[in-house]
Amino acid sequence: MTTKQLIEQIHRKKSFLCIGLDVDLNKIPEFLLKEEDPIFKFNKAIIDATHHLCVAYKPNTAFYEAYGLKGWKALEKTIHYLNASYPEIFTIADAKRGDIGNTSSRYAKAFFEDLAFDSMTVAPYMGKDSVEPFLAFENKHTILLALTSNEGAFDFQTKKIDGKELYKQVLETSKSWKNSENLMYVIGATKAEYLKEIRQIIPNSFLLVPGVGAQGGNLQDFCKYGLNKQIGLLVNSSRGIIYASKNKGFAKAAALKAFEVQQEMEEILNQL
Amino acid sequence: MTTKQLIEQIHRKKSFLCIGLDVDLNKIPEFLLKEEDPIFKFNKAIIDATHHLCVAYKPNTAFYEAYGLKGWKALEKTIHYLNASYPEIFTIADAKRGDIGNTSSRYAKAFFEDLAFDSMTVAPYMGKDSVEPFLAFENKHTILLALTSNEGAFDFQTKKIDGKELYKQVLETSKSWKNSENLMYVIGATKAEYLKEIRQIIPNSFLLVPGVGAQGGNLQDFCKYGLNKQIGLLVNSSRGIIYASKNKGFAKAAALKAFEVQQEMEEILNQL
Repeated sequence: MTTKQLIEQIHRKKSFLCIGLDVDLNKIPEFLLKEEDPIFKFNKAIIDATHHLCVAYKPNTAFYEAYGLKGWKALEKTIHYLNASYPEIFTIADAKRGDIGNTSSRYAKAFFEDLAFDSMTVAPYMGKDSVEPFLAFENKHTILLALTSNEGAFDFQTKKIDGKELYKQVLETSKSWKNSENLMYVIGATKAEYLKEIRQIIPNSFLLVPGVGAQGGNLQDFCKYGLNKQIGLLVNSSRGIIYASKNKGFAKAAALKAFEVQQEMEEILNQL
Repeated sequence: MTTKQLIEQIHRKKSFLCIGLDVDLNKIPEFLLKEEDPIFKFNKAIIDATHHLCVAYKPNTAFYEAYGLKGWKALEKTIHYLNASYPEIFTIADAKRGDIGNTSSRYAKAFFEDLAFDSMTVAPYMGKDSVEPFLAFENKHTILLALTSNEGAFDFQTKKIDGKELYKQVLETSKSWKNSENLMYVIGATKAEYLKEIRQIIPNSFLLVPGVGAQGGNLQDFCKYGLNKQIGLLVNSSRGIIYASKNKGFAKAAALKAFEVQQEMEEILNQL
């Protein structure tokens, strides 16, 4: 998918919501456990109920790998279903991969070609030649970890190198990499105040924002500094939406939560 | 596996060789492609022929994920075969994972419990709470990326924070994490000259060293500064060993290459 198609979708749906498909068999409705593939069954119901309210889905691969072969199969079925039934949706493999060149190429092939995700998250620690193999894929997007939303972000990411925080070095340096127009960045939502400076470094890039709750507490704050002329934001919510209920009506309950967030986003977009 | 058991194995085999099982269907003998599971068939033959010459095997997960379900199944079969047939072998999932706390826990469960690897590689970028869930597993080892052997290592890892390179900050900081005795570190073999300072920070830890060729060009150099009282080194070779030949005798050819490296290691160990 091109960035232009993503932006068109955002304007059409008046939403920049990404729904995280982090499926935990202990948290989904119990009656689904009798199904042959409860993970896919759950995802399909959530997707069917929410696809008009969001522009992206983001399965975190850890949740699927934790179930071994069964989990990997459910991930394959989920992405195939998304691509076949809702081709306008932007899909993100939240895999946080990164390795030496020829090995990164294999991850890129697995997620971009075989599974046909539109994008995937990648870790920056191993530098340029570990990321460029992902960037080589046309109309595929590499979402580089920059500033994450967890406590450990302060261990290294915010430490200063030559007077500039590591995550800013990652933003700066990555701009010079080949095909850097295919880069997006993970920017944790707990750090809305950092966004002004981030936007000075990468004014045009899309940011994937985890950590904004269903209540959208700091969504306004984050949008104030994060939105750009092309919108430039994908805001993710996982548990707050997909685990809204454990009853028969779980998908409808998820849709209601997604609708709340979409409404807040529509209001923000209308003010632009 | 305990570190003590690993060290005993090294002394018994007079080897600290780790063989990387990075299986590429374009590089294995063609006649294997007719098999139902050529990846596992190849691994089994390599393992059966070399297990007495090495102390560890390290499948890189990228090579398996690139083949989707078939690849994941081959990875499962390989680790099960290793655990069942050669329980003395130290197994490493070269996965380079790392995510926020509850998600890292899922990766740890997948690789340490379900697949029953002894260890796995983890990326440090997201800090303490992204790594501690791996460290929580008793007698399992978390091999943290510190200084990698690729060109991109110079993009961030060797940049100075408060006068000290990022990779040294990773070494220092990680020592204070809970259950840090379960840490090992990836230190690229192209940087033998850095080892003296690295050993000042982590004198007792095991280092996993990628990038030492089958010729063992810089093995002597690396050992000079890297070996400690408990040996403390695992030196990996992948392509140089497993792709020694594409003929019927490929496993024997791999064993010969492994034997060359083991002999060099035996000589080094005998000089201690």
